Order: sequence, then structure tokens, then C-alpha cells
Amino acid sequence: MAKKALQATDFQHLLEEILNNGTAGNAHVLNEQLHPSDIADLLEALPREKRAELWDRVDNAGQGEILTEVHGDVRSQLIEASSDAQLLAALASLQGDELADLHEDLPQNVIKEMLVTMDSGRRLCYETIRSYPDDTAGGLMDIDAITIRAETTLELVLRKIRELRELNGSLPEHFDSVMVVDSNDCPLGALRLADAVSMPPNTLASAVMDVDVPAIPVLTPANEVAQLFENLDLVSAPVVNDKGQLLGRITVDDVIDVIREQSVHAMMSQAGLDEDTDMFAPIWRSALQRTLWLSANLVNAFIAAFVIDRFSASIQQIVALAVLMPVVASMGGVAGNQTLALVTRGIALNQVTSANARHLLLRELGLGIINGLFWAVVIAIVVMLWFSNAQLGLVFGVALTINMLTAAGAGTGVPLLLDRVGVDPALAGGVVLMAITDVVGFTLFLGLATLFLL
Amino acid sequence: MAKKALQATDFQHLLEEILNNGTAGNAHVLNEQLHPSDIADLLEALPREKRAELWDRVDNAGQGEILTEVHGDVRSQLIEASSDAQLLAALASLQGDELADLHEDLPQNVIKEMLVTMDSGRRLCYETIRSYPDDTAGGLMDIDAITIRAETTLELVLRKIRELRELNGSLPEHFDSVMVVDSNDCPLGALRLADAVSMPPNTLASAVMDVDVPAIPVLTPANEVAQLFENLDLVSAPVVNDKGQLLGRITVDDVIDVIREQSVHAMMSQAGLDEDTDMFAPIWRSALQRTLWLSANLVNAFIAAFVIDRFSASIQQIVALAVLMPVVASMGGVAGNQTLALVTRGIALNQVTSANARHLLLRELGLGIINGLFWAVVIAIVVMLWFSNAQLGLVFGVALTINMLTAAGAGTGVPLLLDRVGVDPALAGGVVLMAITDVVGFTLFLGLATLFLL
Repeated sequence: MAKKALQATDFQHLLEEILNNGTAGNAHVLNEQLHPSDIADLLEALPREKRAELWDRVDNAGQGEILTEVHGDVRSQLIEASSDAQLLAALASLQGDELADLHEDLPQNVIKEMLVTMDSGRRLCYETIRSYPDDTAGGLMDIDAITIRAETTLELVLRKIRELRELNGSLPEHFDSVMVVDSNDCPLGALRLADAVSMPPNTLASAVMDVDVPAIPVLTPANEVAQLFENLDLVSAPVVNDKGQLLGRITVDDVIDVIREQSVHAMMSQAGLDEDTDMFAPIWRSALQRTLWLSANLVNAFIAAFVIDRFSASIQQIVALAVLMPVVASMGGVAGNQTLALVTRGIALNQVTSANARHLLLRELGLGIINGLFWAVVIAIVVMLWFSNAQLGLVFGVALTINMLTAAGAGTGVPLLLDRVGVDPALAGGVVLMAITDVVGFTLFLGLATLFLL
Repeated sequence: MAKKALQATDFQHLLEEILNNGTAGNAHVLNEQLHPSDIADLLEALPREKRAELWDRVDNAGQGEILTEVHGDVRSQLIEASSDAQLLAALASLQGDELADLHEDLPQNVIKEMLVTMDSGRRLCYETIRSYPDDTAGGLMDIDAITIRAETTLELVLRKIRELRELNGSLPEHFDSVMVVDSNDCPLGALRLADAVSMPPNTLASAVMDVDVPAIPVLTPANEVAQLFENLDLVSAPVVNDKGQLLGRITVDDVIDVIREQSVHAMMSQAGLDEDTDMFAPIWRSALQRTLWLSANLVNAFIAAFVIDRFSASIQQIVALAVLMPVVASMGGVAGNQTLALVTRGIALNQVTSANARHLLLRELGLGIINGLFWAVVIAIVVMLWFSNAQLGLVFGVALTINMLTAAGAGTGVPLLLDRVGVDPALAGGVVLMAITDVVGFTLFLGLATLFLL
């Protein structure tokens, strides 16, 4: 039976089955019917002890691909749980570029032994890709591009493809086009397979090649590569060195992984978590990781507490201040967070730059004034009625308006500033923003109250 | 010159140039050198008035594709800024499936006129796709699959492809494989073009077709389609009706758009914003949209205020309570948010289900106890020293521990519960969680203080 991908409901049933009854009875299903990526998903969804149990029952042949599919912490666990011999057998089924992805997590002695037994082609691929950072075009590429010269006829191109297949027994994955290069090995364009088979056989490659496929410099950041693929609807694209010579090609499956990682990163980093965080990591390790983030926020909370403490005499006289001060701070935080999300998205998509930042800031400040005044009036009336104190309502309204203006400015400025100094705005933006809106909110409200109400 | 995709830095320069000197001097560059998707990015990055100015100078030929590339609010603005004749000319260059994507935003009279002049093939495509929801396989598919029978030889397959190209003048986009179907039009597998050109010409399609390519039911949710493409590294896949018959095919470029949208959705929705939000939307419309989210959070803030008000007599006696109460609430919020992010990611990737939820909950509660006790001890000591009050420190520690346990439970339970009742956990999770940790935090700390310190 073919290894079909699981539907979401089948996945749930299998997960439940393994959790309740263990892997033993399901080993057959696992190895014969599941795609390695589904096994990878299952492994990530299982608690650690069940994970090791399942891993032991997976066929060696599938283990290599599973290792490339699972994320950071889970991968480390699986590698730790495997003997060197088991790892070497698993790695034997992988391409050079896949090995380069695993490199960081593999034990040194396994890498050494693997290099000894590797054939020269795989080794070259492995070592070339490993020489570029993971998050650049070089780290994403394969070195399996098929090249032809511009003056080749389509008939010859097809013959070359047939010969390559006979020679290697297979063709590169996601093979949708051959690269047309000049005598210096610089890409001139891409000849699509669809064009090669459907145009007259005596046509020259240069006449039908697509010259819009961009040559991607090898050190281009991965997120820019992803945007190129997105914008130009590419399936594969050539990667070149600084002389413009072809080094390899990037295929769309690797780009999808980049976009998915960015997506998970955006979700996780605003809570101070790594995108590779294992749901079932060892509890003490998780506790330590989370503690770092909690302590950053604790600093925030204590700064706010110190601010409040400065005004304890005022609070003792008008206890309503204690009741209302969290409202001023939290409305600022929420409003600022909206601006922050908008600007962070813009930075991630390269749509917010210093060129249009001023326009954006002015607009957000305008919004801050509108929403600030609106809520100031609404809540001030509520406050006046609740505490029968018109002046308290007025102070509240003024503090709220100014804090929402501050939030708009900080929501725009903080992520731009963080981005400029090389700190990820998705990670640190929220903490810095909250510190600002808390301190300004508490200071303004309690300070104005002390000045005008006592 | 070919239309190359822009590098990020070139994009910035062009944006700056247009902001400072207007579009007029750059119209030539725009139309001759820029890819429509780059123009779409430029339009999104421009304030509204500059946007209309640029739009007027874009060639009609590119306007159709640009409309498919820009997002919700911006698209509406551009459509409003165009005359009916201009729109009809722009739409003429689009495929039926692209028109179906634009459908919702187009004026009724333009749609009517467009349908009258449309050829029957495009019209069928347009009306077929429009009959399925946007966020299902049916909404994503094209109906341009090329089909063959299993007993066709590769030689015949290639001849058929050549004939189709002569007939239509072109082949489908992302044409990497032909679908092999049985006599009922049910897909049996996919014959890759790479295999068709490289295997002996007299081979039967059935002998080399890939049977692992899944047939996707037409109502499969878009996010499940994306996961299939990701897991199986697909470039295209067949879509079938409930009888298993081929309706069309989905290509990887549409899947990338789905994943990107999910990514932006995750980032924006935690701030209560739509993923289509225009950075430069009309200010009053934005103010209204944000006000809805602010009011949801205002309810939270006022519930917390009411809780604090219950204990105003205690605060008046021990003003340190007012100083410390935000610390208890915010530490709970931050810890809960970490659990929430982890569980929301798991739900989005289909890795958290009722099957493993119990394991996850127990683990998060364990983490809550460890981190709760640790911080309780640390901060309690700080509190004892700061306020020279051992009992206050003790009350603080107990309240903090219980609130962090609550946060762990709510961080796990809230997103699962929201997901089960069909509410997006990425959107509402944070608000609900914050309400819980605020109320529990304030009630516990102030309540315990009232019981034991007065």
C-alpha cells in the first residue's frame, strides 16, 4: 500500500491509540503506511517517554528523513536516544544538503565516521552547504542544478536529461527546469521542462528560456529568498557566488519550511519562546527557559511597583486611585500592542522602512489622539458616576489620552529602533512597550492626581 | 530589460524616491522594470494619497495581477479608484481562478459586464471555483489539470502535451505533472514531467506514475491542504469531489500564500487586528476597528477594577497592597501567555488534540508549580525586606504561586476550549487568559491580605 499522508482526524486517532496502547501494536502501520513527515508529527505530539518508545520501532530507512523533519529539541532527544550505528544507518539515506541541516545536532564521532564512508559527490555537497550560514540562500540550496549552454537545442537538452537519469538512476528533486549558463558558468535564464517538451525540438534553449528567474546571491537572507519565491511564484531558482557564477539551486519545498518557521517564530517569540521549543521538553529545562522571560517581565513589574510606591501617600488618601490605575496602564498597553503588531508585520514583510516610517508614526499618533480622547470621555464619565468625583474623572481622562498617545509613539518607534540595532522586534517589542506604557500610565495618573486632587 | 524582482535595499530606495518626488518621474521604471508583485508591495507601503497617484500610472496590463497580489483593504481602495472600463481592461489579463479570488471586491456591474464578454472556458473556471468557500481546497484550485489514462505510453503523453500547447498557445502554470485518471475520472496518480521525458518512450504511464500524491477532497480546509504540501513536498496535487472524481489541481504558489496568510494572521490577531489590515487605512475606519478590541480589553480592566474596589478598605490600611498587586497579576499573565503560545502553536499545527491535552496540562501545571514556587520565594524575600513585613511577603508568595498555577491551567484549557467551540484561539486566547489571571491575581492577593494581615 502506498504511504498516503494522514488526514487530521486519522492523525488524532493514531495519536490516541499510541498514547493509550503504546507503539508495539502499531509498528506495522507506522512503517508500512505512514509518511516520515507524519511520523515526525506524531513524535512531536507525544510525551518524551512515549517518543523514545516509538522511535525504537521505526525502520532505520525512515529515521533519516524523520530527523530532518522534527524540530530542534525533539531532534536532539531522538539523536541522543540512538546508538552511533543506528544514526549512521539513518544518515545513509540522506542527501548532502539534508546532512548539512542536521550537522549541528550530530555527535562529532558520528560526523567523522560518516565523512569517511561518504562518496565524493555527497561529501562535496555536504561540505559546500555547511560553509554557508543556515539562514542564507547558501544554507538552503542544493548543489544538484543541471546546466546547459544557451545554444543547445531542446532535443539535445532532453537527451542530456535522459543520459543523466541513466547515469545516476534518478533526477534531482523538484526538477522543473534546467539552468542555462554562459561560458563563465553565470546563469542566463531557466529553461522550463514544460517548454522543453512542448516546443519544436530544434529550438535553441536561448529562444525559450525564462530570463525573469532571478539569480540569488549566496548570502541573501532566507526571508528575502522566501519573498522572492512568493512574489515570482518560483519552483526553483539558481544561487550564485559574488562573481555571479552558479553554485546551486533552491527549491520551493525548502522555502515553504522557511515561511513556516517564520510563522511559528512570530507566534512563539512574543511569549519569549524559541520556535523550536518542544511541548514535552524535560520539565527542569523548560522551567529554566521560561524563568529567563519571567525575570525580564518581573523587572517591568517592579519598575511599575516602585512608581506606585512613590505615590503611596496619595493612594492612602484617595483609594480610588488604586482601583483605577491598572485601567490607565492596561489601555495604553493594549493600544500600543496594536500599533506594535502592525509595524512588526510591516518590518517582517519589508514594507516598513525609514522611508515611510514618518508617515506611519503621524498616522498612529492621530489614531492615538482619536481613540485616546474617545475612551477618555467615555471612561471619565463612568468614573465620575462611580466615585461621584468630577475632578477624578478629569484626571483619569487626561492621563489616559496622554498614555494612549505615548503607546502609539512607542508602538511605532520601539520595533523600528529594535530592528535597527539588530534585536528581533517580535521578541523584545512587547516587553519594552509594556514597560513604557506601565510607567507612563502609572506616573501620569498618580502624578496628576497628586497635583490636582490633594 | 527583463522584469527582475527587487532586492530589499532597491525596494527601500524606490519607496523613498516615490515618497519624496512622486510617481511621475518613475512611471517608466515602474512599468518596464518592476514585477507586478513588487508594485503591489510598493502600493501597500505607500500612504493612501500616494497610492492612488501611483496606481494611475501603472499600465493596464499589469493592474490585473497587482489586484490579485495586494491585500483586502488596499485592494478595495484600488478598485474604488478605478473606472469600470479600467477594471474591465485589467481583469481581461487574469485567469478564471484569479478572477474568482477578486470576486468579492468587484462592483456588481463590472462582474456582469465581464461575464458577458468572457470566453466559455474562463467563465466555467470562474464559476466553478466561486462555488467553493475561499478557504477550502475548492477555493484554492485551478481547473487546468491535464489528464491521461493509465495505459498511455510516455511518447503519447508528450505528444498530447505538444498538441495542447499548439492549441492553447500555452501550458498551465506550474505544470510539473499530468494527472493519471481511470475511466470514471478518478485520479490514480501523477506522472511527473521529469519522469515522462527521462524514461523510455514506450513505458506506460501506470508504470512510472507517482501514487503517493494525495487526492484532496474539495472541501478540505486550506490549512490542511498547506500541511499536506509541506509534509509531502508537493508542487501540485489533484482536487476531487465526493465521488473521488478529478475537479482541478492546487499548485504550490497558492499554498505559499495560505501559509503566509496564516503567519500574518497569527501575528496580527493576538492584537485583535485583521491580517488584511491596511497600514494606511482611512483613519476613522481604523479608529473604529481598534475601538472594538479596546472595548473588549476595557471590560477586562473594569472587572479587575471592581475586584480591587471590593478591597479598598484593606488598601487604605496597607497601601503596600496597591504597590504589589500589579506584580501578582502581571506575573500570572506573562506565565499564562507562554503556555498559551505553546498550545496555540500546537493547535495550529494539529499537534495538540484531546488525545494528548491531558499530558500537556499536567506538564504545564508542573511547570506552574516549579516556577510559581521559585518566584514566590524570591519575590517574597524582596517584599519582606522592602516593606519589613514578613507576613506580607508570605501572603504575596502564596498568591503568586496559586496565580501561576491558574495561569498554567488557563493557558492550556482556554485555547483548547475556544478551538472546540469554533473561536480562533490566536484571536481571543490572550483576552480571556488575561481576564482570568487578573481577577484571580487581584482577588487572591487582596483577599488573603484581608484575611490574614488585618
